[in-house]
Amino acid sequence: MTETIYSGLKQLGGATRLPESPDQAELERVQNPQADVAYNVRFTVPEFTSLCPMTGQPDFAHLVIDYMPGDWLVESKSLKLYLGSFRNHGAFHEDCTVSIGRRLAGFLKPRWLRIGGYWYPRGGMPIDVFWQTGPMPEAVWIPDQGVPPYRGRG
Amino acid sequence: MTETIYSGLKQLGGATRLPESPDQAELERVQNPQADVAYNVRFTVPEFTSLCPMTGQPDFAHLVIDYMPGDWLVESKSLKLYLGSFRNHGAFHEDCTVSIGRRLAGFLKPRWLRIGGYWYPRGGMPIDVFWQTGPMPEAVWIPDQGVPPYRGRG
Amino acid sequence: MTETIYSGLKQLGGATRLPESPDQAELERVQNPQADVAYNVRFTVPEFTSLCPMTGQPDFAHLVIDYMPGDWLVESKSLKLYLGSFRNHGAFHEDCTVSIGRRLAGFLKPRWLRIGGYWYPRGGMPIDVFWQTGPMPEAVWIPDQGVPPYRGRG
Amino acid sequence: MTETIYSGLKQLGGATRLPESPDQAELERVQNPQADVAYNVRFTVPEFTSLCPMTGQPDFAHLVIDYMPGDWLVESKSLKLYLGSFRNHGAFHEDCTVSIGRRLAGFLKPRWLRIGGYWYPRGGMPIDVFWQTGPMPEAVWIPDQGVPPYRGRG
Amino acid sequence: MTETIYSGLKQLGGATRLPESPDQAELERVQNPQADVAYNVRFTVPEFTSLCPMTGQPDFAHLVIDYMPGDWLVESKSLKLYLGSFRNHGAFHEDCTVSIGRRLAGFLKPRWLRIGGYWYPRGGMPIDVFWQTGPMPEAVWIPDQGVPPYRGRG
Amino acid sequence: MTETIYSGLKQLGGATRLPESPDQAELERVQNPQADVAYNVRFTVPEFTSLCPMTGQPDFAHLVIDYMPGDWLVESKSLKLYLGSFRNHGAFHEDCTVSIGRRLAGFLKPRWLRIGGYWYPRGGMPIDVFWQTGPMPEAVWIPDQGVPPYRGRG
Amino acid sequence: MTETIYSGLKQLGGATRLPESPDQAELERVQNPQADVAYNVRFTVPEFTSLCPMTGQPDFAHLVIDYMPGDWLVESKSLKLYLGSFRNHGAFHEDCTVSIGRRLAGFLKPRWLRIGGYWYPRGGMPIDVFWQTGPMPEAVWIPDQGVPPYRGRG
Amino acid sequence: MTETIYSGLKQLGGATRLPESPDQAELERVQNPQADVAYNVRFTVPEFTSLCPMTGQPDFAHLVIDYMPGDWLVESKSLKLYLGSFRNHGAFHEDCTVSIGRRLAGFLKPRWLRIGGYWYPRGGMPIDVFWQTGPMPEAVWIPDQGVPPYRGRG
Amino acid sequence: MTETIYSGLKQLGGATRLPESPDQAELERVQNPQADVAYNVRFTVPEFTSLCPMTGQPDFAHLVIDYMPGDWLVESKSLKLYLGSFRNHGAFHEDCTVSIGRRLAGFLKPRWLRIGGYWYPRGGMPIDVFWQTGPMPEAVWIPDQGVPPYRGRG
Amino acid sequence: MTETIYSGLKQLGGATRLPESPDQAELERVQNPQADVAYNVRFTVPEFTSLCPMTGQPDFAHLVIDYMPGDWLVESKSLKLYLGSFRNHGAFHEDCTVSIGRRLAGFLKPRWLRIGGYWYPRGGMPIDVFWQTGPMPEAVWIPDQGVPPYRGRG
Ligand SMILES: [Ca+2]
Ligand SMILES: [Ca+2]
Ligand SMILES: [Ca+2]
Ligand SMILES: [Ca+2]
Ligand SMILES: [Ca+2]
Ligand SMILES: [Ca+2]
Ligand SMILES: [Ca+2]
Ligand SMILES: [Ca+2]
Ligand SMILES: [Ca+2]
Ligand SMILES: [Ca+2]
Ligand SMILES: [Ca+2]
Ligand SMILES: [Ca+2]
Ligand SMILES: [Ca+2]
Ligand SMILES: [Ca+2]
Ligand SMILES: [Ca+2]
Ligand SMILES: [Ca+2]
Repeated sequence: MTETIYSGLKQLGGATRLPESPDQAELERVQNPQADVAYNVRFTVPEFTSLCPMTGQPDFAHLVIDYMPGDWLVESKSLKLYLGSFRNHGAFHEDCTVSIGRRLAGFLKPRWLRIGGYWYPRGGMPIDVFWQTGPMPEAVWIPDQGVPPYRGRG
Repeated sequence: MTETIYSGLKQLGGATRLPESPDQAELERVQNPQADVAYNVRFTVPEFTSLCPMTGQPDFAHLVIDYMPGDWLVESKSLKLYLGSFRNHGAFHEDCTVSIGRRLAGFLKPRWLRIGGYWYPRGGMPIDVFWQTGPMPEAVWIPDQGVPPYRGRG
Repeated sequence: MTETIYSGLKQLGGATRLPESPDQAELERVQNPQADVAYNVRFTVPEFTSLCPMTGQPDFAHLVIDYMPGDWLVESKSLKLYLGSFRNHGAFHEDCTVSIGRRLAGFLKPRWLRIGGYWYPRGGMPIDVFWQTGPMPEAVWIPDQGVPPYRGRG
Repeated sequence: MTETIYSGLKQLGGATRLPESPDQAELERVQNPQADVAYNVRFTVPEFTSLCPMTGQPDFAHLVIDYMPGDWLVESKSLKLYLGSFRNHGAFHEDCTVSIGRRLAGFLKPRWLRIGGYWYPRGGMPIDVFWQTGPMPEAVWIPDQGVPPYRGRG
Repeated sequence: MTETIYSGLKQLGGATRLPESPDQAELERVQNPQADVAYNVRFTVPEFTSLCPMTGQPDFAHLVIDYMPGDWLVESKSLKLYLGSFRNHGAFHEDCTVSIGRRLAGFLKPRWLRIGGYWYPRGGMPIDVFWQTGPMPEAVWIPDQGVPPYRGRG
Repeated sequence: MTETIYSGLKQLGGATRLPESPDQAELERVQNPQADVAYNVRFTVPEFTSLCPMTGQPDFAHLVIDYMPGDWLVESKSLKLYLGSFRNHGAFHEDCTVSIGRRLAGFLKPRWLRIGGYWYPRGGMPIDVFWQTGPMPEAVWIPDQGVPPYRGRG
Repeated sequence: MTETIYSGLKQLGGATRLPESPDQAELERVQNPQADVAYNVRFTVPEFTSLCPMTGQPDFAHLVIDYMPGDWLVESKSLKLYLGSFRNHGAFHEDCTVSIGRRLAGFLKPRWLRIGGYWYPRGGMPIDVFWQTGPMPEAVWIPDQGVPPYRGRG
Repeated sequence: MTETIYSGLKQLGGATRLPESPDQAELERVQNPQADVAYNVRFTVPEFTSLCPMTGQPDFAHLVIDYMPGDWLVESKSLKLYLGSFRNHGAFHEDCTVSIGRRLAGFLKPRWLRIGGYWYPRGGMPIDVFWQTGPMPEAVWIPDQGVPPYRGRG
Repeated sequence: MTETIYSGLKQLGGATRLPESPDQAELERVQNPQADVAYNVRFTVPEFTSLCPMTGQPDFAHLVIDYMPGDWLVESKSLKLYLGSFRNHGAFHEDCTVSIGRRLAGFLKPRWLRIGGYWYPRGGMPIDVFWQTGPMPEAVWIPDQGVPPYRGRG
Repeated sequence: MTETIYSGLKQLGGATRLPESPDQAELERVQNPQADVAYNVRFTVPEFTSLCPMTGQPDFAHLVIDYMPGDWLVESKSLKLYLGSFRNHGAFHEDCTVSIGRRLAGFLKPRWLRIGGYWYPRGGMPIDVFWQTGPMPEAVWIPDQGVPPYRGRG
């Protein structure tokens, strides 16, 4: 269709293989078409899986990423491939969640970013991890992530 | 207060210790005051715990017991103590749930009984166990147990 | 306003005292204005309380009463006063629920009636009681009572 | 737009006044465009109000009407006006609900029809009324009406 | 990747335009890889829109399609394009829902099929439409569609 | 009926075609009848659809618009037609949401305005976009938009 | 019963007609029995209806009124009659909600007051209106009104 | 069992009669075992009932009491008996709720206390009452009471 | 701990690698300790992932497996490893779900078995697959799987 | 697998007995791999049980622990064993909850920590306890714990 800010991208639209590790994943970004105003964007990622570095068994998480774009928007297919690259990668819950947030913050140079990682229970006790680059700037707004609390059974 | 069908009971009202195992627990029963009609009774037990026979670690379950009394009603304090007696007792999920149902059915001789055991997840996969003495007799009625399904996170 | 089937009633509209016991409560009924067809009526009663006959302490229940009128409809204010009369009356959970159903069935002579009593937890284990006069006649319809299951905390 | 089965209607599209009573309301019907197969239609009516014949005070209900069309579909604007005509009309809960169902059944001559009336609480006890023309014909299907049960507070 | 039952399809994987009307949409089907057993498949379609034939204004619906495949499975991209073809097409609620069901049933020749159409409210009263080819064959199973009932506000 | 602030409007009440693009849509406004006090208004728009500029395929969103009127209220039918004009228009999620908010803010000159765009998932990851003109002025109040978080399945 | 702060009221306890318009409704107030402390009171009004001034058709809303009493409490039956007086009265959504709040604030002279009006959808887009007299005074507390957001279908 | 801070209490463990009025109820308190730190305690009371002083008819409420202990914890059985003493006592909604909060605050001398009273509907409009001793001290934390809003039917 | 029916198992308790494909996964079974009665067992599996055979991209599903054991119970760790073996395996939604059910049925020879596969949305339309070995035998009981329906956004 | 920060731990991976009391439980900690940034971690513990010091009967609670790591992360298996050590230990609700929080705070020396203890009802009134080390440091973020309020029945 029309010529867009997406025209220079490598992975969008083509047949793309899942990267073998986070290191091999290439995040891409496009120019923020509303860069003159402050706003927030949320990605919800219910399909995240990695491996436990202790046992090699699969782990699963539900991630929610909020950010306030500066000059760049993350291109969503490259974000999906980056997150998919953890599929065969060992990662501790706390470390993994914060690392994803920091890599995105380093690449996108947003005005602000936060990530919530809601991990599926192991040993009956789920772990949630919450990181942000700093306090949310005033004048912008983003709702609570609103992920329901874990409650076991009953 | 008044003289009641509860007057001959041993455990009700007194200071009672938790039995050390299901074998040592003594179920008690009282006469069904409405024995001439068919009806159903439900006990919901969100506070059940036993030990894993493989690892000795605690397991937890949410139990729901439905029965259609014949000549007897179970006395609820003795039921609570019987269920509490699993606290230091090793029990597999499937076996434990069905055993509780069968012991109650043997003791109360109800017209019908069923038990649902909704176990907390282990290894990310919870087990539920459902047993009943046979089809629910016609003309009586009991709602679905309605325990919400497990859904992990998100 | 207009002359209605309610015109002969004693308790409706006047200043009425709560009966001191169920025996002193007077149920009233009016002619079923749609007596030529089969239909069902549900009363939901979230404000029921009685006394524990063992301890004298208050008990609470949420009641749902479904019936298929024959020649009579129950007059709702007299139903409310009858149910309110348990306020200072000792009653066991199973017995009380079935007794209310039976008294209504005897007085209204409905084609069918059922009652669900959902008692607040004592000792951590709530009791629910379900009675009906027999199978629901074919050709009529009534939804499940749909009272959410008890789940403790979390 | 196109010539349709709706072309002969009186009330659709014009500026229409609310009828002053149910008697003055004129239901309209259109030919069932799928009359060779059996299917079901549900109208959900959360905006129903009438007057209490005893006190003249407003009553409110949530109605759900299910029917299996024969030769006719009800025209929805005329249905809305008919239901709106109860606004200044006195009606008892049980009688009103069944009467609406019967008038629709008489007018539409459906293969089957049912109505559920879920009235707002008076005296703390809401009344629900359920009527249908007979058992739902086999081979058709309609979900439960699924209106949440009343629960008071908490 | 591998050669599959999907290899002969026209629309899958390519850049495809939305058909301009349902007539121009081409449904495709693939061989049922489990044709020797009876099972059920559900598609949930929360993104359906058409035009009102009376006013030309957009209508929206949430559709749920259940079917029990015979020799064929519907190819999901062609199903999506077919449903998308209603975007600029006038359609009455009752007629549209049943027509979609009948076209799928004619094309797929399933052992059984049903469709539920849950339309967004117009005039404060939403319409739901439910059609199936006949009673669900015994020995198979499919849950209720479980779409929450409309409730207005509050 | 009565002469009102709505009397000068062009689109209200007449037969109106959907504008072919946002540029062709004409927003209208009426005088704020309570302009001497600060208050907030929310429009909830569950029926929004546009086209993906990359693929031409339909996209869907749930929008919530909050504003604090100054001299003007938006006329709701013109708002509906403006939002409907995106139906055949290509729009990226982030850009589209912020653009709608900015056009409304420019036209209505409200004391404050915000928009939340909750897009249906693509590639398994929905995008939400949140923009406001600045911090909500003190002394006014508006609840959280409260749109439930996306959770995938289970 | 006992002599109370309610003894001087006109409408309480008697047979009272619905006022024909808001102008004819007479609000009443009683002395605040806890006037030496700051607290808040919430009325929830799920049974509100008025008429559309453009079409004469009924509108419905769910209202929530919060206030912090000064010298006066509103008498609840007079509040009910005042709100009922909108039944045959034309009122725009934004104007009506704010007007109710302002009349109550003028009459009760509370330390603070707010009103939320949650209107049933028209044209698929419900309007909510939120007004308060100013920021909630420090040291008092009132929960969010917590009315669930509108979501259309699905 | 062991000698504890509870050893001097009068009502705990014994057979205790419900006090006949709030004046006759005796609250008891025990030493705060964590008096050197600031924390909060919540009691949830879904089983509260009193009498309407105007009509003598029963009223029901759901209470939630939050407090930040100073030197004392309330002994929970004495709290239960105090709240039970309203059973045969006339009390207006606003006055009753605030009075309970003030009596507890006077007796316990907590660092902070609040009470929410969520009354069952009368006349279709429930009343909620919220009082606290002052702003919650910084550095402590307590969640919203989270009682779901009343919504009538549907 | 004690010698049990689990004593001969290979994978339980040891450090086990995820099988590379379903073919390489080894299901294990133990003797049913309650083989003389009919009962049902449910496994809920919210952590299932496979690859799309067309694109190689990850797919996710929520599985629920119900069975009525005959001579054997499935050993849960081997079940977990079998389901984990789909992680790097291409599988179509319909085929994959039915295949898992058939392999379990072949291996366990249960009296009855069913599987529900609730797949995460692709192209905005999730697919659910439901298979069972035949009608549930009378006299046993298992609740609906109760997985909430997909609803998109809003 | 790889050498990690977990390599020096005693309890992880081995067969571990439940400690007989909290005093005998040994908490373990690992180096915080993201110690240069401020973030928060939540553990949800729906499987907590202790004994009532007055009666010896079991108590149950749902715990949620939030902390902002400094130099250390708690090792989750040792946390689980510590919490499991209350199984045969007498503990009052208020004291127990705060004690757990203080022991964790003393051992982990976090930048901030809080604990919520949601106890199952006794005597119909559940107790919740909330403690934190002080106000949450600015610039970090953690959602409300979101445990649903207790509501009794109905
Ligand atoms: Ca918030
Ligand atoms: Ca687990
Ligand atoms: Ca059912
Ligand atoms: Ca629980
Ligand atoms: Ca009421
Ligand atoms: Ca059903
Ligand atoms: Ca309740
Ligand atoms: Ca998708
Ligand atoms: Ca999930
Ligand atoms: Ca509408
Ligand atoms: Ca809040
Ligand atoms: Ca409503
Ligand atoms: Ca069912
Ligand atoms: Ca929707
Ligand atoms: Ca209890
Ligand atoms: Ca909050």
